[in-house]
Amino acid sequence: MASLSCSANQLAQLLGPNTTNATAAAAYLCGQISTISDKFTDTAYAVDTTYLLFSAYLVFSMQLGFAMLCAGSVRAKNTMNIMLTNVLDAATGGLFYYLFGFAFAFGSPSNGFIGRHFFGLKEIPSSSFDYSNFLYQWAFAIAAAGITSGSIAERTQFVAYLIYSSFLTGFVYPVVSHWIWSPDGWASAFNTENLLFGTGVIDFAGSGVVHLVGGIAGLWGALIEGPRIGRFDHSGRSVALRGHSASLVVLGTFLLWFGWYGFNPGSFNKILSPYSSGSYYGQWSAVGRTAVTTTLAGCTAALTTLFGKRILSGHWNVTDVCNGLLGGFAAITAGCSVVDPWAAIICGFVAAVVLISCNKLAEKVKFDDPLEAAQLHGGCGAWGIIFTALFAREKYVNEVYPGKPGRPYGLFMGGGGKLLGAHVIQILVIVGWVSATMGPLFYVLHKLKLLRISAEDEMAGMDMTRHGGFAYIYHDDDDSQKPGIQLRKVEPRSTTPTSI
Amino acid sequence: MASLSCSANQLAQLLGPNTTNATAAAAYLCGQISTISDKFTDTAYAVDTTYLLFSAYLVFSMQLGFAMLCAGSVRAKNTMNIMLTNVLDAATGGLFYYLFGFAFAFGSPSNGFIGRHFFGLKEIPSSSFDYSNFLYQWAFAIAAAGITSGSIAERTQFVAYLIYSSFLTGFVYPVVSHWIWSPDGWASAFNTENLLFGTGVIDFAGSGVVHLVGGIAGLWGALIEGPRIGRFDHSGRSVALRGHSASLVVLGTFLLWFGWYGFNPGSFNKILSPYSSGSYYGQWSAVGRTAVTTTLAGCTAALTTLFGKRILSGHWNVTDVCNGLLGGFAAITAGCSVVDPWAAIICGFVAAVVLISCNKLAEKVKFDDPLEAAQLHGGCGAWGIIFTALFAREKYVNEVYPGKPGRPYGLFMGGGGKLLGAHVIQILVIVGWVSATMGPLFYVLHKLKLLRISAEDEMAGMDMTRHGGFAYIYHDDDDSQKPGIQLRKVEPRSTTPTSI
Amino acid sequence: MASLSCSANQLAQLLGPNTTNATAAAAYLCGQISTISDKFTDTAYAVDTTYLLFSAYLVFSMQLGFAMLCAGSVRAKNTMNIMLTNVLDAATGGLFYYLFGFAFAFGSPSNGFIGRHFFGLKEIPSSSFDYSNFLYQWAFAIAAAGITSGSIAERTQFVAYLIYSSFLTGFVYPVVSHWIWSPDGWASAFNTENLLFGTGVIDFAGSGVVHLVGGIAGLWGALIEGPRIGRFDHSGRSVALRGHSASLVVLGTFLLWFGWYGFNPGSFNKILSPYSSGSYYGQWSAVGRTAVTTTLAGCTAALTTLFGKRILSGHWNVTDVCNGLLGGFAAITAGCSVVDPWAAIICGFVAAVVLISCNKLAEKVKFDDPLEAAQLHGGCGAWGIIFTALFAREKYVNEVYPGKPGRPYGLFMGGGGKLLGAHVIQILVIVGWVSATMGPLFYVLHKLKLLRISAEDEMAGMDMTRHGGFAYIYHDDDDSQKPGIQLRKVEPRSTTPTSI
Repeated sequence: MASLSCSANQLAQLLGPNTTNATAAAAYLCGQISTISDKFTDTAYAVDTTYLLFSAYLVFSMQLGFAMLCAGSVRAKNTMNIMLTNVLDAATGGLFYYLFGFAFAFGSPSNGFIGRHFFGLKEIPSSSFDYSNFLYQWAFAIAAAGITSGSIAERTQFVAYLIYSSFLTGFVYPVVSHWIWSPDGWASAFNTENLLFGTGVIDFAGSGVVHLVGGIAGLWGALIEGPRIGRFDHSGRSVALRGHSASLVVLGTFLLWFGWYGFNPGSFNKILSPYSSGSYYGQWSAVGRTAVTTTLAGCTAALTTLFGKRILSGHWNVTDVCNGLLGGFAAITAGCSVVDPWAAIICGFVAAVVLISCNKLAEKVKFDDPLEAAQLHGGCGAWGIIFTALFAREKYVNEVYPGKPGRPYGLFMGGGGKLLGAHVIQILVIVGWVSATMGPLFYVLHKLKLLRISAEDEMAGMDMTRHGGFAYIYHDDDDSQKPGIQLRKVEPRSTTPTSI
Repeated sequence: MASLSCSANQLAQLLGPNTTNATAAAAYLCGQISTISDKFTDTAYAVDTTYLLFSAYLVFSMQLGFAMLCAGSVRAKNTMNIMLTNVLDAATGGLFYYLFGFAFAFGSPSNGFIGRHFFGLKEIPSSSFDYSNFLYQWAFAIAAAGITSGSIAERTQFVAYLIYSSFLTGFVYPVVSHWIWSPDGWASAFNTENLLFGTGVIDFAGSGVVHLVGGIAGLWGALIEGPRIGRFDHSGRSVALRGHSASLVVLGTFLLWFGWYGFNPGSFNKILSPYSSGSYYGQWSAVGRTAVTTTLAGCTAALTTLFGKRILSGHWNVTDVCNGLLGGFAAITAGCSVVDPWAAIICGFVAAVVLISCNKLAEKVKFDDPLEAAQLHGGCGAWGIIFTALFAREKYVNEVYPGKPGRPYGLFMGGGGKLLGAHVIQILVIVGWVSATMGPLFYVLHKLKLLRISAEDEMAGMDMTRHGGFAYIYHDDDDSQKPGIQLRKVEPRSTTPTSI
Repeated sequence: MASLSCSANQLAQLLGPNTTNATAAAAYLCGQISTISDKFTDTAYAVDTTYLLFSAYLVFSMQLGFAMLCAGSVRAKNTMNIMLTNVLDAATGGLFYYLFGFAFAFGSPSNGFIGRHFFGLKEIPSSSFDYSNFLYQWAFAIAAAGITSGSIAERTQFVAYLIYSSFLTGFVYPVVSHWIWSPDGWASAFNTENLLFGTGVIDFAGSGVVHLVGGIAGLWGALIEGPRIGRFDHSGRSVALRGHSASLVVLGTFLLWFGWYGFNPGSFNKILSPYSSGSYYGQWSAVGRTAVTTTLAGCTAALTTLFGKRILSGHWNVTDVCNGLLGGFAAITAGCSVVDPWAAIICGFVAAVVLISCNKLAEKVKFDDPLEAAQLHGGCGAWGIIFTALFAREKYVNEVYPGKPGRPYGLFMGGGGKLLGAHVIQILVIVGWVSATMGPLFYVLHKLKLLRISAEDEMAGMDMTRHGGFAYIYHDDDDSQKPGIQLRKVEPRSTTPTSI
């Protein structure tokens, strides 16, 4: 690159007594300034990429969070199964999103429905997309699949998982993200040529695009499979099938919290964008505010759940608090960048109420979702979309979605009902699209007897029947020489007789 | 923002043959340079905010570390309880620190005792505080509460926890951080108008503000509650009540180590501050040095503990090594930015000795702290404050605390005794303040019978009696249809008879 | 530092009607530009240090990943032992790498074999190395030791561990990293004065320097110790000694994946380096591409292993998939920055095949490595070195290794065989060096009866005999008053008689 150095001698001659070299002087100075300008461009790319990549790593850590949360929430006998699905969400997601998912989602120029460039990262890097954007969006895509695998845990054939997961990550999800996040998408708030209701959908980090999609897919899967054996007893009473490790649940929840700081504030993609140059207020400040609204929504939802469940169930329940917390996060995800911190508290409070209500309803209709994923990501996700349409603040909306001044904002903030209209449409369309794609898929798998495992396998646990053994072996005295005995030893009943 | 571009034509005319437009030429050039200056300001905000936010995320991950460390260090029957307190430290901390904690701590202008602005983040962002500062400080505040919950684990009523934790995070801790970290604080090294002993207290990342505060609060709680049942036998002999999972202890310790890189180096808040412009040596270098001193202190303390405990107890103990490591970190936290790496090794060595001694003393006086939190954070934290007063290097002190040249530094480095005087006062005042606030609070709760659980509940474990069940269910054959049996199955004794 | 401000008045006078002050005008303007240049230098240091430090933190988190992976992969009775080694890798590594490891590796100026400056970080910071470089390299050094401890798990005396681990981290590994990564190293691609075969070795993040070194060391250790008792039965048949917790294995694997984003993309050390100034394509883009190639190699290896093992063993095995994934990462580590994403898929596919083959071979020759570390890090690491020599792309090689235009690149990409030659030599030399140093060390320890524990201790487990007790206590009814019984209670057989 051109080096930024200035020769005083040279410049002096240019500016010398009679200044006959004015043109040269000007060229010299302008060359310097052009170099400076280039260096600022470089700096912005480096800073923004650093910001985006580390945000992507945080979002990726949510996959670990999901794995631990799911593992802890199922019974020990299905731990290997659910963790394998979480690892594979990331792995198959990596290949499929590279081959075509990213292209469907962000390929540009394209129509409003689906992208058609960037297959296999062709034409990347470009001036609008770099490898870091792909990595960040891949981490999002695998989150959606992770949500769904929770809903149908403990009873789904592994081959069914492989099929629906690929279809969801590779096609269903990328299409929705194209609609709402690509500048070409028909419902996108970035589509400044042709904004739906003059506003487009403000789903900043994906209460709808990620959480509602994953939740509705899980809803159909869990509905078609039916509840786990024993989840409702002969008289129809609900029976809690408690997960096997609260420690893993808390570990997973905290990791998700940690990763959500990549998910929400990271969705700005860039941090070096001034709003009014040279002042302390710029996108960096909006990024920080987004981290704060995210935190407050989760905290409020957690506390609401704590006291709500204490009243309803009589005890202080840490796993319920964890789910409430995550519900608050799922809800604030849509509006995190465009609402005030006080509004985030309202968001979290209602999210907790929504989750408790959805869970009550699920029990009533005998719907069994081991992770409460449909209720949490679907219910709280939908609430988050509505919330944004009510509380989005004018100033923030115009800063975060620039290029189209005077756009509608939150109904309760005086911004009219257009945003609410767009957001209701978003919910309907997402529910419709996911139902129309994932519903039939699950149904066909069901009809082909590829969806649910046999009752015997379900009782025995999938780890023993499909995944090579139980996940845990805590007692292994000196039986290391007896192959296979480790599996027996974890069941006290069968060992006790031999020792008497 | 103004675009940074230079028109050679325009400039040539301005500088032209007779240079009659000198004023315009100058204005033109100066406008360019002013734009450049603004862009540097923007860049610095973006870089510093990126640095601070990711540091805040790291500090937040320490809460997960605490949760895992605490969970692993208590008996299985109290796992749900302790993890719930860790989740709630973060959640209640979020609300309270938003509503008034941050205001008490950093509200400015204020008096030397307590802040009185920024309630509910009003007036944020300002030129001195942005949302990222709040997030970072919130993550610190919840750490203090986490320390205390370890000291009184396994025997404290949940409602007592809710009360003291709110009081500590919302008031006691913020006041101390105001004294020492706010530019208005009476003991602050940033209070350049009016420095205590001409130096103020150099507690860079909070050996005193965080660790000593949390440790002393835990000391009073544990003292007033008394030891857990069985911790000292009838003859008064100490009985180790070992935690239920060394894996969780190691997991938590490593997470704390990981997060400490946000805690200590992150306390600079900014990284783009040159000490001598255009050179390789600037705040980025001091930040790196701080990460190195932190690492070396922890490593040395771990190794000292390894060999020390091997001599004392005869075995190589991983949980002791973990605690030693954390003691080294707690100690270096005060002086991490102003001492040399070799001094950090001394710091860590003595910290390990202090921790072993405090633990010996605790056994002797029958003081029971399940996490050794009072000893570790209190004892090593106090040592760290003294250490800083002995080893702080002149050059580093003046770089890290600029704006007041020629300030005192470490006694052993030739800097006189003033810093030591200020630091002794810091210890006395923190111990006094926390004792005067948390002591009476615990005592009143004790008198109201709200502090300690009943002996029956303590024997049964808090998870069964208060939190809806045992944290783990590893054996669940086919009893999924029998509600409640999971709980029974985890206790071999009671099941054995029924199976014979 | 000089403030960047421009006085229009002053400048106007300088440029005034007769421009007699041309020299002063030029000096004034050049002073401004010099200040600007300095500020860019500062900015680059701050951005690059932020990038490097957070990458270092990620690499450090791999140590936690190793600890959890190792813990989960061994039997419960050796959990404390293996975790202690992981904590100590970091702790002793910290001290030794500070005292001399970093000096051996990067001390400059030096000869081609070993460095001889920077002992105890003397002369740091300099214009080429800052504290952040040390921290980053330390995190790498401890990874090598972590690999080896996996190979000899469950049967090695703790004192032997202390000895070989110090020797490996403090000497064997630093020497190899000097050869290949120091600008003075005889095989270094940065040694532009004197390039081996005109190319030097392109081992970007250390498939050879870290993984092959750790793997070969582990190979010798495991060979000399022999298999664990019971690993091969009387008829010589292989018996799987399954690890005690698949949850810990998955946790560890995901953490390693997370940390690998610091390991591979972080190895650029700097992110603010334009390739063509002012355009969107610069080192930030290469950093992102490196994260993508890393991801794709791991994902492909995981999927290949999933289906491969399904065919071979009949079940879908999550721990095998985890190992396959890590094998893909170990392989791509050498070439991650200089190959295209599609090539990374080939790399991962072959890595999985290599790992499966090495494991088959190990069974055949009765080689027992509890973590498959020699196979995974040795085998896949060696493949990664060859892969780089085949697929390195010209454009990327010249960008990532600048200063020597027209250097050789991948054989299959038309770059000739010189790189392959250099890489074959790298493999031979690393295998030779590690065998010549670690082999005799393990042999001497073996002869001195310091290497392997007794058969009785191995049957009982090292935790009970050396580390103060079993890692887990899940059942602790009300026996908290009976000292010591916790240890007995975890072994059902011995307690059952007393309770009847």
